[in-house]
Amino acid sequence: MSAPSDEGLPSRPKEEAGEEKGPSKSALKKAQKDREKAEKLAKRLALEEEQRMKAEASDTAKHLYGPLSGQSARPVKKFCKSLQDLESVAEDEEVTVQARIYNARAQGAKLAFLVLREQEHTIQVVVAEGGAHGISRQMIKYCAGVNTESFVRVTGLVKAPKDPVHSTSLSNQELHLESLYVVSPAEEQLPLQVKDCIKPPSTREEGEGEADTNDPNATLKTRLDNKILATRAPATNAIFQLQSEICTIYSQYMLSHGFTMIQPSYLAGAATEGGSGVFEVTYFERKAYLTQSPQFFKQMAIAGDIGPVFSIGPVFRAENSNTKRHLTEFTGLDYEMPIQEHYHEVLSFGEDLMLHLIRQLLSRPKSKHLTSIIRDAGYPDAGNFQVPPEGTKATRITFQEAKTLLKDSGFDIGTDPHADIDTAQEKALGDLIKQKYNTDFFTIDQYPLSLRPFYTHPSPSNPELSNSYDFFMRGQEIMSGAQRIHELPMLKEMMKAKGVNPVDPGFKDYEEAFRYGCPMHGGGGLGLNRILQFFLGLNNIREATLFPRDPVRLGP
Amino acid sequence: MSAPSDEGLPSRPKEEAGEEKGPSKSALKKAQKDREKAEKLAKRLALEEEQRMKAEASDTAKHLYGPLSGQSARPVKKFCKSLQDLESVAEDEEVTVQARIYNARAQGAKLAFLVLREQEHTIQVVVAEGGAHGISRQMIKYCAGVNTESFVRVTGLVKAPKDPVHSTSLSNQELHLESLYVVSPAEEQLPLQVKDCIKPPSTREEGEGEADTNDPNATLKTRLDNKILATRAPATNAIFQLQSEICTIYSQYMLSHGFTMIQPSYLAGAATEGGSGVFEVTYFERKAYLTQSPQFFKQMAIAGDIGPVFSIGPVFRAENSNTKRHLTEFTGLDYEMPIQEHYHEVLSFGEDLMLHLIRQLLSRPKSKHLTSIIRDAGYPDAGNFQVPPEGTKATRITFQEAKTLLKDSGFDIGTDPHADIDTAQEKALGDLIKQKYNTDFFTIDQYPLSLRPFYTHPSPSNPELSNSYDFFMRGQEIMSGAQRIHELPMLKEMMKAKGVNPVDPGFKDYEEAFRYGCPMHGGGGLGLNRILQFFLGLNNIREATLFPRDPVRLGP
Repeated sequence: MSAPSDEGLPSRPKEEAGEEKGPSKSALKKAQKDREKAEKLAKRLALEEEQRMKAEASDTAKHLYGPLSGQSARPVKKFCKSLQDLESVAEDEEVTVQARIYNARAQGAKLAFLVLREQEHTIQVVVAEGGAHGISRQMIKYCAGVNTESFVRVTGLVKAPKDPVHSTSLSNQELHLESLYVVSPAEEQLPLQVKDCIKPPSTREEGEGEADTNDPNATLKTRLDNKILATRAPATNAIFQLQSEICTIYSQYMLSHGFTMIQPSYLAGAATEGGSGVFEVTYFERKAYLTQSPQFFKQMAIAGDIGPVFSIGPVFRAENSNTKRHLTEFTGLDYEMPIQEHYHEVLSFGEDLMLHLIRQLLSRPKSKHLTSIIRDAGYPDAGNFQVPPEGTKATRITFQEAKTLLKDSGFDIGTDPHADIDTAQEKALGDLIKQKYNTDFFTIDQYPLSLRPFYTHPSPSNPELSNSYDFFMRGQEIMSGAQRIHELPMLKEMMKAKGVNPVDPGFKDYEEAFRYGCPMHGGGGLGLNRILQFFLGLNNIREATLFPRDPVRLGP
Repeated sequence: MSAPSDEGLPSRPKEEAGEEKGPSKSALKKAQKDREKAEKLAKRLALEEEQRMKAEASDTAKHLYGPLSGQSARPVKKFCKSLQDLESVAEDEEVTVQARIYNARAQGAKLAFLVLREQEHTIQVVVAEGGAHGISRQMIKYCAGVNTESFVRVTGLVKAPKDPVHSTSLSNQELHLESLYVVSPAEEQLPLQVKDCIKPPSTREEGEGEADTNDPNATLKTRLDNKILATRAPATNAIFQLQSEICTIYSQYMLSHGFTMIQPSYLAGAATEGGSGVFEVTYFERKAYLTQSPQFFKQMAIAGDIGPVFSIGPVFRAENSNTKRHLTEFTGLDYEMPIQEHYHEVLSFGEDLMLHLIRQLLSRPKSKHLTSIIRDAGYPDAGNFQVPPEGTKATRITFQEAKTLLKDSGFDIGTDPHADIDTAQEKALGDLIKQKYNTDFFTIDQYPLSLRPFYTHPSPSNPELSNSYDFFMRGQEIMSGAQRIHELPMLKEMMKAKGVNPVDPGFKDYEEAFRYGCPMHGGGGLGLNRILQFFLGLNNIREATLFPRDPVRLGP
């Protein structure tokens, strides 16, 4: 009789039911062998563990290494705040530093070499058996096994190496280790090696130009996804130190010229600026909007008699453009000032500001040093930026002159004199002006009114033109600016002509600024990230942005 | 036969149909009189217009006044950028200034007096018939009739008045007018008089304490609704100039202590900080959130080896609180630094920073001058701020000491040693500490862990406490800060304990910061607006904010 079938249930396929059949002879043999193998392994591991325990128990150096957390570390005699400070420490002095493990390797059981890294500074650490504190082999093994990128506290004696250590930046010094505590370990598997971020990003990425599949360097995307690791590479780190320098030079220039730093609001009750997109914010029971620029707040400050004003802060653009020079959030260096007689006062001020900024970046010791780190990492244009000599004004051409220059060089500028210059033409213009005037910075004045926002002041001498200007570095726009309309009737007329709806509640506040007397004024908004990008000749604005935001990226 | 009725339409009531009846005799008489009156008036107006036209045609001074726009104004010999610069101009020199009409009155037909205002500076302008340029009576009438708050360009000769003009700040000078052009007129009806904003806001407003119905000063709400006019009042103007001073002193201190200025992002992919509310942003096809602090970005910068960092930027809080010290957007002065051995390094740094800031505000000539303007306007606490003498450290007490102080002074602090100190107790504490230590600035250290956010480092000596601190000015909190957890296992444990969900995509980025080695670090976030508010002793944080945002206010 056959066994009763499991009626109603599908019968199990043979393969799955295999274990229910009696084992074959060869399978039994294999199982026996496996068991023996496992027993052997277990014995070996137990022995090793026993040896390890014994060794540890006899490890006289136990207090000299390990995780810092919960450890009663040796008291620190002299803390060096930076690896660079070691240069001023005398030989044989005991110092403590905190830095990252950049490299760690054992050379036999009695010796190990570490390299510590902090920004662009590196130093070799020698871990040798014995010595005054009795460094053990276990300790050497531990030190050589610390994962790279771990943050450690190292105490040692400063020594001059027999031969300079060419692979480190502090090549005339090394540390002879006395203790090493891991402040914070790095995981063994890193998603990105800092070594692969030393040079500029690979162009392997799609859309990043000619693909070089042999390029070992990490792509920009990988770096942005692993921003914390990527930022540790010296050049990338220096880029953001230099960003701080730009903010500092800018602020100091503005303050020394009588400007007041204001803190605009970044939330507006209405999307007032028209044109490009704004981000909508859920504001309790209603809608608010992220400001696309501090424009209106600067103007209100002028109407409120604060005088010339500047700000440093985020600018939000809800534009779905994925280019190398656009972000949805960037830092604006904005300013606005009263005009006495002519808007060229504002234009000249801005030009002088930019020339000062660039000259400072080229001459301040800290900026020069940072720029050289970036250049040496393989950014050939870093620091190679021409401006007219001190005492000379910036190169300024009118929009029509720019078009003529392009036309004379064979560019098709069409027949409409008010058609804009496109990005490719701007770059070509940068080359033409570099040839003609030997400058990487220039400005274009008197744009057609039709190309500018409604609040731009028309040119009194030609109503088709406007009192407006753009600033360029290496033929790429870094600022738009203009004299603004300060007379309410003209503003209303222009809003009508440009199809801006003045009934919008946001415009009520804006119009207020011109109802009660407003000085003539003008200004502009510099893009911090673009200044940094083009000063250094970086390929992508994301390289000049600590936490870039674009239509697809919202983190880290 | 009766007229056919408008069938289907309601018949009009008699009163409305009244005009269809024949006029009465008396009505006809009245109409005749009205006609005669109107004819007389028209004749008179025509005559006046004729006289005006004649006068204008014969007005030899026509080119010396009027709206600036479209006018070929007289060429400027010497522009004074500020009214204050007039003090260094020699008598009888011709100068041009641009400022507002603060006051204008005719004294008969041949003389008028104007007062020009620019921030806290005022000067008298004498407009007298005749003179070298032949000032006409029409011109005098025009000048006396310019609406107050209009922005004008005035050219005149600098003169010493016979007697000092006590009603103006430049009392030893006056201008003898030669020309006056209106750059931008103010409307005749102003929603707020600048004169009513000279002194602190009235307490008439609901919920603003004891109502004083006789107080002629504008309420805060009126001032905020008409921000541009209110900001023109000297004290209000000086408050925002002083805000710039605070940012300047702060930045300079940070830079001189080796900090790097970073530009965090204000948009996050997830609402990571838990606790208080966040504003949601529509970010293309998904959601983003406005950051509640640059906390995570500062920490990522530290993990990315930027070193000690600081920032100045907006902080967004979607909290529906309508108090005198809360806003939905304020300016954060944030900083974060690596710790070498103990978090008191960070606490001491912050204390020294604040002492430096306050001492500078009390001693820098510009800050002192601005503070005195504010004090003189009726803010008695402005500039009256005690800190320990130079070379002395800040007053620091522990949370438990604070509670004991309160208890000893009769406050009910309850039985739970980890219960927080409330706002009223903090203020009382400020008074107690002022009495005991003669300081308006102090810090409280070692808050119970349960009161702080998940990323706060527990105290190694007492797991119920934390390595955290708050800063106070006049007994009001201006900063929260702490050592942050830098070890991933501890962070995860704390997130679990605090009920924070680590699966949230925002936390993935955050955790990354601690996967690859992170220095011990700590920092804090100072509230710029609160520092300004409490340094000056302002009643409401909105007085210390150029464009305040709260649950009900989104403009101007």
